Amino acid sequence: MKQLAASASLRDEFPILRQLDDELLMRLSQTAAWRRYDAHEAVQNNDETCDGLMKVKQGRLRIYMQDENGKEITLYRLYPGDSCVMTASCLLHHMNVDFLIEAEIETIVILLPTTYLGAVSQSYPALKDHLNELVRSRFSQLTWVIRQIVFSSMPSRIAEFLVEQYVIRESSVLSLTHEEIANDLGSAREVVSRILKYFQEEGLIDQSRKKIRLVDLENLKKRIV
Amino acid sequence: MKQLAASASLRDEFPILRQLDDELLMRLSQTAAWRRYDAHEAVQNNDETCDGLMKVKQGRLRIYMQDENGKEITLYRLYPGDSCVMTASCLLHHMNVDFLIEAEIETIVILLPTTYLGAVSQSYPALKDHLNELVRSRFSQLTWVIRQIVFSSMPSRIAEFLVEQYVIRESSVLSLTHEEIANDLGSAREVVSRILKYFQEEGLIDQSRKKIRLVDLENLKKRIV
Repeated sequence: MKQLAASASLRDEFPILRQLDDELLMRLSQTAAWRRYDAHEAVQNNDETCDGLMKVKQGRLRIYMQDENGKEITLYRLYPGDSCVMTASCLLHHMNVDFLIEAEIETIVILLPTTYLGAVSQSYPALKDHLNELVRSRFSQLTWVIRQIVFSSMPSRIAEFLVEQYVIRESSVLSLTHEEIANDLGSAREVVSRILKYFQEEGLIDQSRKKIRLVDLENLKKRIV
Repeated sequence: MKQLAASASLRDEFPILRQLDDELLMRLSQTAAWRRYDAHEAVQNNDETCDGLMKVKQGRLRIYMQDENGKEITLYRLYPGDSCVMTASCLLHHMNVDFLIEAEIETIVILLPTTYLGAVSQSYPALKDHLNELVRSRFSQLTWVIRQIVFSSMPSRIAEFLVEQYVIRESSVLSLTHEEIANDLGSAREVVSRILKYFQEEGLIDQSRKKIRLVDLENLKKRIV
């Protein structure tokens, strides 16, 4: 992680701060920081970290959970323009989460550190409302994840994952290992390998070492149920 | 569902309303209702319903999701003293959930209907804070559910479910079908049957028609990992 020197107009970056009076805003600006993370760099390593409210300017953050054996599941991703409330969860009572966050690709964020943000949010209810609204949006995403895990079949989830990656990467050739897909979906490598082999036999994808090529996108999409 | 006549001191029932001025509180009291639900009666049938903030006085509510085939998973349960924010989710922006709610046993709740509650929550930030705090608590419960589904084995989850039911029902003889356990855990009946048969062979439980008797509670607990 690298601190960048660029300064930001906080009113532009965080519209929610527009009503903040000039003095508060200036003090908040002084603590704001731009940060750059390398691809696969950890943004939050454990639930004790509480850097502050982050807004993604460029790149992509992945929010995920991990068990003691290293098994993972991705909960959601944040794209440019999205704000991350999990890095500010200590400002909110009863917000106990054990999410990990990594930059999936090189990522630049603006950070409003909790040190001063906490004080501001006390005297400025709109900011607190905004944090709560972010929590509620993520709440809906978690219910979606549960719905996927419990009610969708693995073939459907893998097809959806591949199509999603095609959109994110803007390429039909995906550099992905079976292990990485399993980690994203909270499944086992063997399960993913079996289903990908089946997709290949059906002519939906082609596989070579660490690469998956989407051959028949239209029919792959039909596997999402 | 039955409306009950009993009136409540809202300040006692909802400590969060303590600071509310007398006039607001009186108007809120006039809309408050006591309701009784039978065992297995639906409290919320779909995500369009938005009755209001409910507090469980007696009994137990189950919050769950269901797919179009009737497959279910229980997200959490609410016990006497707990408040249900999902029945008031329309008061909160970006709170899109498709949870179903049923009374598991005969249940009595106090309801503060959204009609007037919405107006109060605008002028009385403590109430809004309280709703948001409830959302955050449930958020943590959802992450726990995901963690369980993805990272815990089914034998462990079934053992935990049986011990939980033992505590709730205060009985080591549980009237439960394999189907009901599968629905609670978002699994398939066949999977549950196979694991229960294994638990029986190990001398942890005994099974007869629609009944499971916990024979060796101490060792059953050791299966929870």
